[in-house]
Amino acid sequence: MCELLGMSANTPTDLCFSFTGLTQRGGKTGPHSDGWGVAFYDGRGVRLFHDPQPSATSPVARLVQDYPIKSEIAICHIRQANVGAVTLANTHPFVRELWGRYWVFAHNGQVHSFQPCSGLFEPVGSTDSEALFCDLLNELQANLMRDVPISELTAFLEQKARSYAEQGVFNCLLSNGEWLFTYCATKLASITRRAPFGAAQLKDTEMIVDFRAVTTPNDVVSLIATEPLTSDETWDVYQPGEWRLWQRGEVVARS
Amino acid sequence: MCELLGMSANTPTDLCFSFTGLTQRGGKTGPHSDGWGVAFYDGRGVRLFHDPQPSATSPVARLVQDYPIKSEIAICHIRQANVGAVTLANTHPFVRELWGRYWVFAHNGQVHSFQPCSGLFEPVGSTDSEALFCDLLNELQANLMRDVPISELTAFLEQKARSYAEQGVFNCLLSNGEWLFTYCATKLASITRRAPFGAAQLKDTEMIVDFRAVTTPNDVVSLIATEPLTSDETWDVYQPGEWRLWQRGEVVARS
Repeated sequence: MCELLGMSANTPTDLCFSFTGLTQRGGKTGPHSDGWGVAFYDGRGVRLFHDPQPSATSPVARLVQDYPIKSEIAICHIRQANVGAVTLANTHPFVRELWGRYWVFAHNGQVHSFQPCSGLFEPVGSTDSEALFCDLLNELQANLMRDVPISELTAFLEQKARSYAEQGVFNCLLSNGEWLFTYCATKLASITRRAPFGAAQLKDTEMIVDFRAVTTPNDVVSLIATEPLTSDETWDVYQPGEWRLWQRGEVVARS
Repeated sequence: MCELLGMSANTPTDLCFSFTGLTQRGGKTGPHSDGWGVAFYDGRGVRLFHDPQPSATSPVARLVQDYPIKSEIAICHIRQANVGAVTLANTHPFVRELWGRYWVFAHNGQVHSFQPCSGLFEPVGSTDSEALFCDLLNELQANLMRDVPISELTAFLEQKARSYAEQGVFNCLLSNGEWLFTYCATKLASITRRAPFGAAQLKDTEMIVDFRAVTTPNDVVSLIATEPLTSDETWDVYQPGEWRLWQRGEVVARS
Protein backbone atom coordinates (compact mmCIF):
# COMPACT_ATOMS: atom_id res chain seq x y z
CA MET A 1 0.00 0.00 0.00
CA CYS A 2 0.98 3.63 -0.17
CA GLU A 3 0.35 6.79 1.78
CA LEU A 4 -1.41 9.90 0.58
CA LEU A 5 -1.16 13.48 1.76
CA GLY A 6 -3.18 16.37 0.40
CA MET A 7 -3.39 20.01 1.39
CA SER A 8 -6.06 22.65 0.77
CA ALA A 9 -5.50 26.17 2.10
CA ASN A 10 -6.98 29.64 1.70
CA THR A 11 -3.54 31.21 1.45
CA PRO A 12 -0.29 29.94 -0.07
CA THR A 13 1.10 27.62 2.58
CA ASP A 14 4.14 25.39 2.67
CA LEU A 15 3.97 21.67 3.32
CA CYS A 16 7.38 21.36 5.05
CA PHE A 17 6.12 20.14 8.43
CA SER A 18 3.66 17.52 7.17
CA PHE A 19 5.95 16.45 4.35
CA THR A 20 8.75 15.87 6.88
CA GLY A 21 6.45 13.60 8.88
CA LEU A 22 5.21 11.69 5.84
CA THR A 23 8.63 11.13 4.30
CA GLN A 24 9.85 9.34 7.44
CA ARG A 25 7.42 6.60 6.48
CA GLY A 26 9.30 6.20 3.20
CA GLY A 27 11.98 3.87 4.56
CA LYS A 28 12.29 4.89 8.21
CA THR A 29 9.10 4.66 10.30
CA GLY A 30 7.16 3.03 7.45
CA PRO A 31 7.81 0.60 4.59
CA HIS A 32 6.86 2.97 1.75
CA SER A 33 10.32 3.09 0.26
CA ASP A 34 9.54 2.65 -3.44
CA GLY A 35 9.58 6.31 -4.38
CA TRP A 36 7.61 9.41 -3.68
CA GLY A 37 6.27 12.46 -5.44
CA VAL A 38 4.57 15.75 -4.74
CA ALA A 39 2.68 18.31 -6.82
CA PHE A 40 2.27 21.93 -5.72
CA TYR A 41 -0.18 24.11 -7.63
CA ASP A 42 0.87 27.71 -8.17
CA GLY A 43 -1.88 29.54 -10.03
CA ARG A 44 -2.68 27.39 -13.06
CA GLY A 45 0.82 25.93 -13.03
CA VAL A 46 2.01 22.94 -11.09
CA ARG A 47 5.42 22.22 -9.66
CA LEU A 48 6.38 18.55 -9.54
CA PHE A 49 8.98 16.57 -7.68
CA HIS A 50 9.27 12.84 -8.30
CA ASP A 51 11.86 10.39 -7.11
CA PRO A 52 11.91 6.59 -7.32
CA GLN A 53 14.28 6.60 -4.32
CA PRO A 54 13.06 6.25 -0.70
CA SER A 55 11.78 9.60 0.55
CA ALA A 56 13.56 9.19 3.91
CA THR A 57 16.95 9.48 2.20
CA SER A 58 16.24 11.35 -1.08
CA PRO A 59 18.17 14.64 -1.57
CA VAL A 60 15.19 15.99 -3.51
CA ALA A 61 12.89 15.16 -0.59
CA ARG A 62 15.29 17.01 1.70
CA LEU A 63 14.96 20.09 -0.50
CA VAL A 64 11.15 19.90 -0.32
CA GLN A 65 11.36 19.55 3.47
CA ASP A 66 13.63 22.55 3.87
CA TYR A 67 12.60 24.96 1.12
CA PRO A 68 9.12 26.37 1.75
CA ILE A 69 7.26 26.00 -1.54
CA LYS A 70 3.94 27.73 -0.98
CA SER A 71 0.75 26.48 -2.51
CA GLU A 72 -3.00 26.43 -1.96
CA ILE A 73 -3.34 22.85 -3.19
CA ALA A 74 -0.73 20.12 -2.90
CA ILE A 75 -0.86 16.36 -3.46
CA CYS A 76 1.83 14.04 -2.15
CA HIS A 77 2.34 10.29 -2.31
CA ILE A 78 4.86 7.81 -0.95
CA ARG A 79 4.88 4.42 -2.56
CA GLN A 80 5.13 0.82 -1.53
CA ALA A 81 5.03 -0.94 -4.86
CA ASN A 82 2.45 -3.65 -5.44
CA VAL A 83 1.64 -3.31 -9.11
CA GLY A 84 4.37 -2.05 -11.46
CA ALA A 85 8.15 -1.88 -11.00
CA VAL A 86 9.95 0.78 -8.96
CA THR A 87 10.55 3.28 -11.75
CA LEU A 88 10.08 6.99 -12.24
CA ALA A 89 7.22 6.36 -14.69
CA ASN A 90 5.33 4.49 -11.95
CA THR A 91 5.81 7.20 -9.32
CA HIS A 92 2.70 9.16 -8.24
CA PRO A 93 1.26 11.74 -8.47
CA PHE A 94 0.33 11.52 -12.15
CA VAL A 95 -0.44 14.61 -14.21
CA ARG A 96 -2.40 15.19 -17.40
CA GLU A 97 -3.85 18.27 -19.05
CA LEU A 98 -7.61 18.30 -19.64
CA TRP A 99 -9.70 21.31 -20.69
CA GLY A 100 -6.70 23.65 -20.36
CA ARG A 101 -5.89 22.69 -16.77
CA TYR A 102 -3.42 20.32 -15.17
CA TRP A 103 -5.13 17.45 -13.36
CA VAL A 104 -3.12 15.73 -10.63
CA PHE A 105 -3.96 12.32 -9.17
CA ALA A 106 -2.58 10.04 -6.47
CA HIS A 107 -4.01 6.68 -5.44
CA ASN A 108 -3.76 4.42 -2.46
CA GLY A 109 -4.91 0.83 -2.90
CA GLN A 110 -4.98 -1.77 -5.63
CA VAL A 111 -7.38 -2.57 -8.43
CA HIS A 112 -5.50 -5.59 -9.75
CA SER A 113 -7.29 -6.63 -12.87
CA PHE A 114 -8.51 -3.20 -13.91
CA GLN A 115 -9.45 -2.99 -17.57
CA PRO A 116 -9.53 0.65 -18.69
CA CYS A 117 -11.77 1.69 -21.55
CA SER A 118 -9.73 3.03 -24.45
CA GLY A 119 -9.37 6.74 -25.04
CA LEU A 120 -6.95 9.54 -25.63
CA PHE A 121 -5.35 9.44 -22.20
CA GLU A 122 -3.00 6.49 -21.90
CA PRO A 123 -0.76 5.29 -19.11
CA VAL A 124 3.00 5.76 -19.60
CA GLY A 125 3.97 3.39 -16.78
CA SER A 126 2.57 0.04 -15.68
CA THR A 127 0.60 0.77 -12.51
CA ASP A 128 -3.10 0.13 -12.02
CA SER A 129 -3.21 3.64 -10.50
CA GLU A 130 -2.19 5.46 -13.66
CA ALA A 131 -4.57 3.27 -15.71
CA LEU A 132 -7.40 4.27 -13.34
CA PHE A 133 -6.49 7.96 -13.69
CA CYS A 134 -6.43 7.77 -17.48
CA ASP A 135 -9.75 5.93 -17.46
CA LEU A 136 -11.27 8.63 -15.25
CA LEU A 137 -10.05 11.41 -17.57
CA ASN A 138 -11.27 9.56 -20.66
CA GLU A 139 -14.68 9.18 -19.04
CA LEU A 140 -14.76 12.86 -18.01
CA GLN A 141 -13.75 13.95 -21.47
CA ALA A 142 -16.32 11.71 -23.13
CA ASN A 143 -19.25 12.43 -20.82
CA LEU A 144 -19.00 15.94 -19.37
CA MET A 145 -18.59 19.45 -20.72
CA ARG A 146 -15.63 21.53 -19.61
CA ASP A 147 -17.72 24.04 -17.64
CA VAL A 148 -19.97 21.52 -15.95
CA PRO A 149 -21.34 22.71 -12.57
CA ILE A 150 -19.29 21.42 -9.67
CA SER A 151 -22.23 19.44 -8.26
CA GLU A 152 -22.55 17.49 -11.50
CA LEU A 153 -18.79 16.98 -11.66
CA THR A 154 -18.58 15.61 -8.10
CA ALA A 155 -21.57 13.33 -8.72
CA PHE A 156 -19.69 11.92 -11.71
CA LEU A 157 -16.44 11.58 -9.75
CA GLU A 158 -18.24 9.83 -6.89
CA GLN A 159 -19.89 7.38 -9.26
CA LYS A 160 -16.57 6.55 -10.93
CA ALA A 161 -14.71 6.30 -7.60
CA ARG A 162 -17.38 3.97 -6.25
CA SER A 163 -17.12 1.74 -9.31
CA TYR A 164 -13.31 1.57 -8.99
CA ALA A 165 -13.63 0.82 -5.26
CA GLU A 166 -15.97 -2.08 -6.06
CA GLN A 167 -13.17 -3.66 -8.10
CA GLY A 168 -10.46 -3.35 -5.42
CA VAL A 169 -9.24 -0.67 -3.02
CA PHE A 170 -9.52 2.93 -4.14
CA ASN A 171 -8.57 5.86 -1.93
CA CYS A 172 -7.62 8.91 -3.96
CA LEU A 173 -6.71 12.56 -4.12
CA LEU A 174 -7.56 14.45 -7.33
CA SER A 175 -7.27 18.10 -8.25
CA ASN A 176 -7.49 20.38 -11.27
CA GLY A 177 -6.01 23.32 -9.35
CA GLU A 178 -9.43 24.75 -8.41
CA TRP A 179 -10.54 22.13 -5.89
CA LEU A 180 -9.28 18.97 -4.19
CA PHE A 181 -11.50 15.89 -4.47
CA THR A 182 -10.85 13.18 -1.88
CA TYR A 183 -12.40 9.72 -1.87
CA CYS A 184 -12.06 7.16 0.90
CA ALA A 185 -12.70 3.48 0.24
CA THR A 186 -10.88 2.25 3.33
CA LYS A 187 -8.64 4.85 4.96
CA LEU A 188 -8.38 8.64 4.98
CA ALA A 189 -8.43 11.31 7.68
CA SER A 190 -8.35 15.09 7.69
CA ILE A 191 -7.58 17.97 9.97
CA THR A 192 -8.38 21.66 9.59
CA ARG A 193 -6.22 24.20 11.34
CA ARG A 194 -7.49 27.74 11.91
CA ALA A 195 -7.17 30.50 14.53
CA PRO A 196 -6.49 30.24 17.40
CA PHE A 197 -3.49 28.27 16.14
CA GLY A 198 -1.43 26.15 18.50
CA ALA A 199 1.47 23.76 18.28
CA ALA A 200 1.57 20.22 16.89
CA GLN A 201 3.93 17.30 17.29
CA LEU A 202 4.73 14.94 14.43
CA LYS A 203 4.13 11.24 15.07
CA ASP A 204 7.03 10.01 12.97
CA THR A 205 9.93 12.17 14.05
CA GLU A 206 10.89 14.54 16.83
CA MET A 207 9.46 17.74 15.43
CA ILE A 208 7.05 20.30 16.83
CA VAL A 209 5.73 23.33 14.96
CA ASP A 210 4.07 26.29 16.59
CA PHE A 211 1.65 27.40 13.90
CA ARG A 212 1.12 30.78 15.63
CA ALA A 213 4.55 31.80 14.37
CA VAL A 214 3.83 31.04 10.73
CA THR A 215 0.17 31.98 10.23
CA THR A 216 -2.18 34.95 10.24
CA PRO A 217 -5.56 34.85 12.04
CA ASN A 218 -7.41 34.41 8.74
CA ASP A 219 -5.52 31.33 7.57
CA VAL A 220 -7.37 28.05 7.10
CA VAL A 221 -5.21 25.06 6.24
CA SER A 222 -6.49 21.50 5.90
CA LEU A 223 -4.58 18.30 5.48
CA ILE A 224 -5.93 15.00 4.24
CA ALA A 225 -3.82 11.90 4.86
CA THR A 226 -4.00 8.13 4.88
CA GLU A 227 -2.95 8.11 8.54
CA PRO A 228 -2.92 11.08 10.96
CA LEU A 229 0.49 12.74 10.92
CA THR A 230 0.42 14.35 14.36
CA SER A 231 0.11 12.75 17.78
CA ASP A 232 -1.54 15.60 19.71
CA GLU A 233 -4.40 16.68 17.45
CA THR A 234 -7.75 15.06 16.70
CA TRP A 235 -8.10 14.03 13.07
CA ASP A 236 -11.49 13.59 11.46
CA VAL A 237 -11.58 10.05 10.08
CA TYR A 238 -13.47 9.44 6.80
CA GLN A 239 -16.06 6.67 6.62
CA PRO A 240 -15.65 3.99 3.93
CA GLY A 241 -17.32 5.30 0.77
CA GLU A 242 -17.13 8.92 1.92
CA TRP A 243 -15.92 11.76 -0.31
CA ARG A 244 -15.19 15.38 0.49
CA LEU A 245 -14.49 18.24 -1.87
CA TRP A 246 -12.08 20.86 -0.50
CA GLN A 247 -11.62 24.46 -1.56
CA ARG A 248 -9.52 27.08 0.18
CA GLY A 249 -9.12 24.90 3.27
CA GLU A 250 -12.81 24.13 3.74
CA VAL A 251 -15.08 21.23 2.82
CA VAL A 252 -17.42 22.75 0.22
CA ALA A 253 -19.28 19.54 -0.64
CA ARG A 254 -19.38 16.02 0.74
CA SER A 255 -21.20 12.74 0.38
CA MET B 1 14.43 35.70 -25.92
CA CYS B 2 15.30 32.58 -24.00
CA GLU B 3 18.05 30.01 -23.95
CA LEU B 4 17.76 26.33 -24.69
CA LEU B 5 19.92 23.44 -23.59
CA GLY B 6 19.41 19.82 -24.62
CA MET B 7 21.40 16.67 -23.94
CA SER B 8 21.50 13.33 -25.71
CA ALA B 9 23.80 10.61 -24.37
CA ASN B 10 24.39 6.89 -24.81
CA THR B 11 24.65 6.35 -21.07
CA PRO B 12 22.89 8.03 -18.14
CA THR B 13 24.79 11.29 -17.70
CA ASP B 14 24.29 14.23 -15.40
CA LEU B 15 23.85 17.78 -16.63
CA CYS B 16 25.47 19.51 -13.61
CA PHE B 17 28.35 21.18 -15.48
CA SER B 18 26.35 22.55 -18.42
CA PHE B 19 23.38 23.44 -16.24
CA THR B 20 25.69 25.44 -13.97
CA GLY B 21 26.90 27.42 -16.96
CA LEU B 22 23.44 27.99 -18.37
CA THR B 23 21.86 29.07 -15.09
CA GLN B 24 24.37 31.93 -14.72
CA ARG B 25 22.61 33.48 -17.70
CA GLY B 26 19.39 33.51 -15.69
CA GLY B 27 20.08 36.78 -13.88
CA LYS B 28 23.88 36.90 -13.65
CA THR B 29 25.76 36.79 -16.97
CA GLY B 30 22.53 36.97 -18.99
CA PRO B 31 19.11 38.60 -18.75
CA HIS B 32 17.04 35.38 -18.74
CA SER B 33 15.71 35.87 -15.24
CA ASP B 34 12.04 35.04 -15.75
CA GLY B 35 12.19 31.45 -14.64
CA TRP B 36 13.73 28.22 -15.76
CA GLY B 37 12.88 24.55 -16.06
CA VAL B 38 14.43 21.23 -16.87
CA ALA B 39 13.15 17.76 -17.77
CA PHE B 40 15.23 14.61 -17.30
CA TYR B 41 13.97 11.40 -18.87
CA ASP B 42 14.51 8.25 -16.85
CA GLY B 43 13.19 5.28 -18.80
CA ARG B 44 9.67 6.20 -19.86
CA GLY B 45 9.34 8.55 -16.90
CA VAL B 46 10.37 12.17 -16.76
CA ARG B 47 11.59 14.19 -13.81
CA LEU B 48 10.68 17.87 -13.91
CA PHE B 49 11.94 20.95 -12.13
CA HIS B 50 10.28 24.28 -12.80
CA ASP B 51 10.77 27.60 -11.08
CA PRO B 52 9.48 31.06 -12.03
CA GLN B 53 12.41 32.54 -10.06
CA PRO B 54 15.75 33.47 -11.67
CA SER B 55 17.89 30.38 -12.11
CA ALA B 56 21.01 32.16 -10.85
CA THR B 57 19.51 32.41 -7.35
CA SER B 58 16.90 29.60 -7.22
CA PRO B 59 17.40 27.00 -4.44
CA VAL B 60 15.88 24.39 -6.73
CA ALA B 61 18.40 25.28 -9.45
CA ARG B 62 21.16 24.89 -6.89
CA LEU B 63 19.93 21.36 -6.15
CA VAL B 64 19.98 20.49 -9.86
CA GLN B 65 23.53 21.90 -10.14
CA ASP B 66 24.80 19.89 -7.19
CA TYR B 67 22.83 16.66 -7.25
CA PRO B 68 23.78 14.53 -10.27
CA ILE B 69 20.50 13.46 -11.84
CA LYS B 70 21.46 11.05 -14.60
CA SER B 71 19.57 10.88 -17.84
CA GLU B 72 20.02 9.98 -21.50
CA ILE B 73 17.82 12.84 -22.68
CA ALA B 74 17.37 16.19 -20.95
CA ILE B 75 15.75 19.46 -22.02
CA CYS B 76 16.39 22.70 -20.20
CA HIS B 77 15.17 26.26 -20.72
CA ILE B 78 15.82 29.63 -19.10
CA ARG B 79 13.29 32.31 -19.84
CA GLN B 80 13.26 35.98 -20.65
CA ALA B 81 9.56 36.67 -20.89
CA ASN B 82 8.19 38.25 -24.05
CA VAL B 83 4.76 36.73 -24.37
CA GLY B 84 2.92 35.73 -21.17
CA ALA B 85 3.47 36.76 -17.56
CA VAL B 86 6.22 35.39 -15.33
CA THR B 87 4.29 32.50 -13.80
CA LEU B 88 4.85 28.83 -13.21
CA ALA B 89 2.27 27.94 -15.88
CA ASN B 90 4.34 29.85 -18.46
CA THR B 91 7.63 28.20 -17.52
CA HIS B 92 9.16 25.81 -20.08
CA PRO B 93 9.66 22.96 -20.74
CA PHE B 94 6.06 21.90 -21.33
CA VAL B 95 4.95 18.28 -21.05
CA ARG B 96 2.02 16.33 -22.45
CA GLU B 97 1.30 12.63 -22.84
CA LEU B 98 0.69 11.37 -26.37
CA TRP B 99 0.49 7.71 -27.46
CA GLY B 100 1.53 6.54 -24.00
CA ARG B 101 4.72 8.61 -23.84
CA TYR B 102 5.62 11.92 -22.27
CA TRP B 103 6.49 14.56 -24.86
CA VAL B 104 8.65 17.45 -23.66
CA PHE B 105 9.07 20.74 -25.53
CA ALA B 106 11.03 23.95 -25.07
CA HIS B 107 11.03 26.92 -27.45
CA ASN B 108 13.24 29.88 -28.12
CA GLY B 109 11.77 32.74 -30.14
CA GLN B 110 8.40 34.36 -30.63
CA VAL B 111 5.45 33.65 -32.88
CA HIS B 112 3.36 36.60 -31.79
CA SER B 113 0.03 36.20 -33.50
CA PHE B 114 0.01 32.43 -33.60
CA GLN B 115 -3.46 30.96 -34.11
CA PRO B 116 -3.49 27.29 -33.08
CA CYS B 117 -5.97 24.93 -34.66
CA SER B 118 -8.32 23.50 -32.07
CA GLY B 119 -7.83 20.04 -30.66
CA LEU B 120 -7.55 17.99 -27.53
CA PHE B 121 -4.28 19.46 -26.35
CA GLU B 122 -4.77 22.93 -24.92
CA PRO B 123 -2.40 25.43 -23.36
CA VAL B 124 -2.69 25.96 -19.60
CA GLY B 125 -0.66 29.18 -19.58
CA SER B 126 -0.56 32.15 -21.94
CA THR B 127 2.65 31.75 -23.94
CA ASP B 128 2.87 31.42 -27.70
CA SER B 129 5.34 28.58 -27.01
CA GLU B 130 2.84 26.35 -25.23
CA ALA B 131 0.21 27.13 -27.90
CA LEU B 132 2.72 26.02 -30.57
CA PHE B 133 3.45 22.81 -28.68
CA CYS B 134 -0.24 21.98 -28.30
CA ASP B 135 -0.80 22.72 -31.97
CA LEU B 136 2.06 20.40 -32.92
CA LEU B 137 0.66 17.58 -30.76
CA ASN B 138 -2.86 18.08 -32.13
CA GLU B 139 -1.47 17.89 -35.66
CA LEU B 140 0.56 14.77 -34.85
CA GLN B 141 -2.44 13.12 -33.25
CA ALA B 142 -4.71 14.00 -36.16
CA ASN B 143 -2.33 13.12 -38.99
CA LEU B 144 0.05 10.35 -37.96
CA MET B 145 -0.22 6.88 -36.49
CA ARG B 146 1.49 6.10 -33.19
CA ASP B 147 4.06 3.75 -34.70
CA VAL B 148 4.90 5.87 -37.71
CA PRO B 149 8.47 5.29 -39.05
CA ILE B 150 10.93 7.84 -37.70
CA SER B 151 11.65 9.20 -41.20
CA GLU B 152 7.99 10.03 -41.70
CA LEU B 153 7.75 11.54 -38.23
CA THR B 154 10.76 13.81 -38.73
CA ALA B 155 9.48 14.90 -42.17
CA PHE B 156 6.25 15.92 -40.46
CA LEU B 157 8.08 17.68 -37.61
CA GLU B 158 10.29 19.56 -40.09
CA GLN B 159 7.29 20.70 -42.10
CA LYS B 160 5.51 21.97 -38.98
CA ALA B 161 8.66 23.62 -37.60
CA ARG B 162 9.23 25.37 -40.91
CA SER B 163 5.68 26.68 -40.96
CA TYR B 164 6.00 28.01 -37.38
CA ALA B 165 9.36 29.61 -38.26
CA GLU B 166 7.71 31.38 -41.20
CA GLN B 167 5.36 33.08 -38.74
CA GLY B 168 8.07 34.30 -36.33
CA VAL B 169 11.15 32.83 -34.68
CA PHE B 170 11.10 29.14 -33.86
CA ASN B 171 14.06 27.31 -32.37
CA CYS B 172 13.02 24.24 -30.44
CA LEU B 173 13.92 21.09 -28.59
CA LEU B 174 11.37 18.25 -28.57
CA SER B 175 11.54 14.72 -27.23
CA ASN B 176 9.30 11.76 -26.53
CA GLY B 177 12.00 9.99 -24.51
CA GLU B 178 13.24 7.95 -27.48
CA TRP B 179 14.90 10.73 -29.50
CA LEU B 180 15.63 14.44 -29.31
CA PHE B 181 14.47 16.55 -32.26
CA THR B 182 16.18 19.94 -32.60
CA TYR B 183 15.16 22.68 -35.02
CA CYS B 184 17.10 25.88 -35.66
CA ALA B 185 15.40 28.91 -37.19
CA THR B 186 18.03 31.40 -36.09
CA LYS B 187 20.38 30.07 -33.41
CA LEU B 188 21.49 26.67 -32.13
CA ALA B 189 24.84 24.93 -31.73
CA SER B 190 25.94 21.47 -30.63
CA ILE B 191 28.96 19.67 -29.35
CA THR B 192 29.63 15.94 -29.09
CA ARG B 193 32.09 14.71 -26.51
CA ARG B 194 33.61 11.24 -26.82
CA ALA B 195 36.92 9.50 -26.04
CA PRO B 196 39.59 10.70 -25.72
CA PHE B 197 37.89 13.04 -23.26
CA GLY B 198 39.58 16.23 -22.11
CA ALA B 199 38.74 19.19 -19.95
CA ALA B 200 36.41 22.08 -20.67
CA GLN B 201 36.00 25.56 -19.22
CA LEU B 202 32.59 27.20 -18.81
CA LYS B 203 32.11 30.59 -20.44
CA ASP B 204 29.81 31.99 -17.79
CA THR B 205 31.52 31.13 -14.53
CA GLU B 206 34.87 29.95 -13.25
CA MET B 207 34.44 26.23 -13.63
CA ILE B 208 36.47 23.57 -15.38
CA VAL B 209 35.52 19.90 -15.64
CA ASP B 210 37.91 17.15 -16.59
CA PHE B 211 35.60 14.70 -18.34
CA ARG B 212 38.20 11.92 -18.12
CA ALA B 213 37.36 11.63 -14.44
CA VAL B 214 33.64 11.13 -14.97
CA THR B 215 33.36 9.08 -18.16
CA THR B 216 34.18 5.69 -19.63
CA PRO B 217 35.80 5.30 -23.07
CA ASN B 218 32.49 4.28 -24.62
CA ASP B 219 30.52 7.34 -23.53
CA VAL B 220 29.09 9.68 -26.14
CA VAL B 221 27.46 12.83 -24.80
CA SER B 222 26.07 15.63 -26.96
CA LEU B 223 24.80 19.03 -25.94
CA ILE B 224 22.66 21.33 -28.01
CA ALA B 225 22.39 24.95 -26.87
CA THR B 226 21.33 28.38 -28.07
CA GLU B 227 24.86 29.67 -27.43
CA PRO B 228 28.01 27.61 -26.83
CA LEU B 229 28.52 27.04 -23.11
CA THR B 230 32.26 26.47 -23.09
CA SER B 231 35.09 28.77 -24.16
CA ASP B 232 37.71 26.20 -25.17
CA GLU B 233 35.80 23.78 -27.40
CA THR B 234 34.56 24.11 -30.96
CA TRP B 235 30.79 23.97 -31.20
CA ASP B 236 29.06 22.97 -34.43
CA VAL B 237 26.72 25.82 -35.33
CA TYR B 238 23.37 24.97 -36.98
CA GLN B 239 22.36 26.72 -40.20
CA PRO B 240 19.03 28.57 -40.24
CA GLY B 241 16.34 26.05 -41.17
CA GLU B 242 18.48 23.08 -40.14
CA TRP B 243 17.19 20.22 -38.00
CA ARG B 244 19.00 17.31 -36.39
CA LEU B 245 17.57 14.24 -34.73
CA TRP B 246 19.67 12.90 -31.85
CA GLN B 247 19.71 9.45 -30.34
CA ARG B 248 22.15 8.08 -27.78
CA GLY B 249 24.47 11.05 -28.29
CA GLU B 250 24.65 10.82 -32.08
CA VAL B 251 22.91 12.59 -34.94
CA VAL B 252 20.80 9.83 -36.52
CA ALA B 253 19.03 12.02 -39.09
CA ARG B 254 19.35 15.60 -40.27
CA SER B 255 18.03 17.99 -42.88
